[in-house]
Amino acid sequence: MDDILLMLPGPTTVHPRVLNAMSQAVVNHRSKRYGEILTETNELMSKMFQTENQSYLITGSGTAVMEAGISNVLNAGEKVLNVVGGKFGERFKKIADAHGIKTQELAVEWGTAVTPEQIKEALDADESIKAVSVVHNETSTGVAAPIKEIGKVMKNYDALYIVDTVSSLCGDEVDVDKYNIDVCVTGSQKCIAAPPGMAAITYSDDAWAACENVDSHTFYLDMKAYRKSGNKDPAETPYTPSVSLTYAMNEALKMIDEEGLDKRVARHHKAANATVAAAKALGLELFADEKVSSATVTALKIPEGLTDSDFRGTIRDEFGVELAGGQDHLKGNVFRIGHMGNISYKELFQTFAAMGIYLERNGIVEDGAAGVSSLVKSYL
Amino acid sequence: MDDILLMLPGPTTVHPRVLNAMSQAVVNHRSKRYGEILTETNELMSKMFQTENQSYLITGSGTAVMEAGISNVLNAGEKVLNVVGGKFGERFKKIADAHGIKTQELAVEWGTAVTPEQIKEALDADESIKAVSVVHNETSTGVAAPIKEIGKVMKNYDALYIVDTVSSLCGDEVDVDKYNIDVCVTGSQKCIAAPPGMAAITYSDDAWAACENVDSHTFYLDMKAYRKSGNKDPAETPYTPSVSLTYAMNEALKMIDEEGLDKRVARHHKAANATVAAAKALGLELFADEKVSSATVTALKIPEGLTDSDFRGTIRDEFGVELAGGQDHLKGNVFRIGHMGNISYKELFQTFAAMGIYLERNGIVEDGAAGVSSLVKSYL
Repeated sequence: MDDILLMLPGPTTVHPRVLNAMSQAVVNHRSKRYGEILTETNELMSKMFQTENQSYLITGSGTAVMEAGISNVLNAGEKVLNVVGGKFGERFKKIADAHGIKTQELAVEWGTAVTPEQIKEALDADESIKAVSVVHNETSTGVAAPIKEIGKVMKNYDALYIVDTVSSLCGDEVDVDKYNIDVCVTGSQKCIAAPPGMAAITYSDDAWAACENVDSHTFYLDMKAYRKSGNKDPAETPYTPSVSLTYAMNEALKMIDEEGLDKRVARHHKAANATVAAAKALGLELFADEKVSSATVTALKIPEGLTDSDFRGTIRDEFGVELAGGQDHLKGNVFRIGHMGNISYKELFQTFAAMGIYLERNGIVEDGAAGVSSLVKSYL
Repeated sequence: MDDILLMLPGPTTVHPRVLNAMSQAVVNHRSKRYGEILTETNELMSKMFQTENQSYLITGSGTAVMEAGISNVLNAGEKVLNVVGGKFGERFKKIADAHGIKTQELAVEWGTAVTPEQIKEALDADESIKAVSVVHNETSTGVAAPIKEIGKVMKNYDALYIVDTVSSLCGDEVDVDKYNIDVCVTGSQKCIAAPPGMAAITYSDDAWAACENVDSHTFYLDMKAYRKSGNKDPAETPYTPSVSLTYAMNEALKMIDEEGLDKRVARHHKAANATVAAAKALGLELFADEKVSSATVTALKIPEGLTDSDFRGTIRDEFGVELAGGQDHLKGNVFRIGHMGNISYKELFQTFAAMGIYLERNGIVEDGAAGVSSLVKSYL
């Protein structure tokens, strides 16, 4: 169970320091001690979001915090522009639909990224758009949206800028305040490399102002309740949090702080570039447009003549490396390599060694060592 | 940090076996291995609920699962009868209000329990009541509602029977199928004695039938999504679960199974009776009506002449025992001793030793040993 290397777009392998922190005795979540840990963790989250605003932890998945993000700033009937170029863009739209928020889809071909110009056009064409939702890093396709450049457009409009950085924060550049992001959400189990089950959110002043005018659609995900409890001294959560996952987040964020956010992001870019080069060296084809390919996950087409189940099954069972399959209509045609969290050169060597052996053994490539040879060059 | 004994109505001290299980490496939540653990855990949950129906885990607090419980079986405008005799009864009502469900409060004086006759009267008076929500164990007051007897009433009506057993399941008698309960919810951090952050829910056929006619009000807490994923083979959750807390729940439920559910419930009743007797021996007065006092938490009045902060602060700082304060209007007047989860005689001796020393030292009682002497008799 412990020997499988997770090369997934989350969850990622969790460092023993974080697992040890998580297994500390559970304290009372209304105690001063927990309040101190929560406050420190919230502050570290704001540091990683690169925002002066307060951040809040919510016990739940990335989906929970996406729902908290969008449902508290829009009333039913108000319009949101959802950029949809993959499974998680779709999810934002489905969440908004579930709350009776009026949705307008800005459809982007899977594997490509939305452009700032497309956002500008949509906003110019319809003044009733109150918010725009963008998934920064679409793990289903391996595409990173240009959130910095979109932020420059958003600056000139009143619409709120809602960004899902679940699989990018601490692995790719996200600067909430500089990018004019109003609502930013993330999860524990991606680039932060804590176990899954905890999520975080931050709101700008404009987002809070919108929130004041919205009747909360839900109770558990009511952001006003998180603000009220979070601003107590010591800080609290409105409902019982996962104390253990708070320990884990705290330790994981301290490890990121020790590494340095910039260095960590650079490490992710290096791993992404090395992965793309090694994949090409093995004759594999990128699913995503290379110009917008993700810093944290690479989606590749499964070579003709191979089946997904035998390919990923053998890589897993014989070599102990777990790769991700495709989602929805990409199932069976695409596989994905996550290189997020604590992944560095050695895990990539293991992964490309396994893939190279498998591909040469099955007659797909002549030189199974081409991937690892390429990695040597990337890490020279 | 590790030396504080939690005598709280949750979270409770977590056994090292459970903490160790939790710190195992995180596996892919879409893997066969996780599916097996989830299926086993769901089955153990159904065993503890004493139901033939399927149970589902939801990553979140007890509040999340209360919201999932009530918001998926009632449409906006439909009426629920909320029994309110404490903070958690109130919460059910607030959740229903947040979803536009029509609420009717059956107010019960804090410290007393609703009677089956009151439920019957309310149902007879208003045929439009589609559901009744009851909190089995109201931790804010230390009162247990007669859910078995209410179940006999509910059997004769079409209204759904929604029961919060967050702080009673595995500590007091809960037999979902025999009691005609349609929606039963619980949390990880109370009598199950796992860390907080995970919750569980089970639906009867009637609840599922109602659910079919309800447009889900939320996305993260949409029960149809949990059913769809949970019924896959291997089982899944619709959104990324807390894998670590699933391990913890699995281990904690296995420990309960090893102890035996009946024996565990009997142990809780014994601890509750011993606590009440020892408290009386120290001259302390119960807040709750003794006839309906809880099997898992005892609420006591703070003796005149003492302040809550000095009393509980000293018990904590000098003796390492954390007692709970009162909630809402009971703050400062009531304190609470949780005796749930793994608590047995030795923790009660520590607690009553600390309280006895403090009370005699402060001139409140003459014989500070009266509490522990009483405990000896209870455990003869």
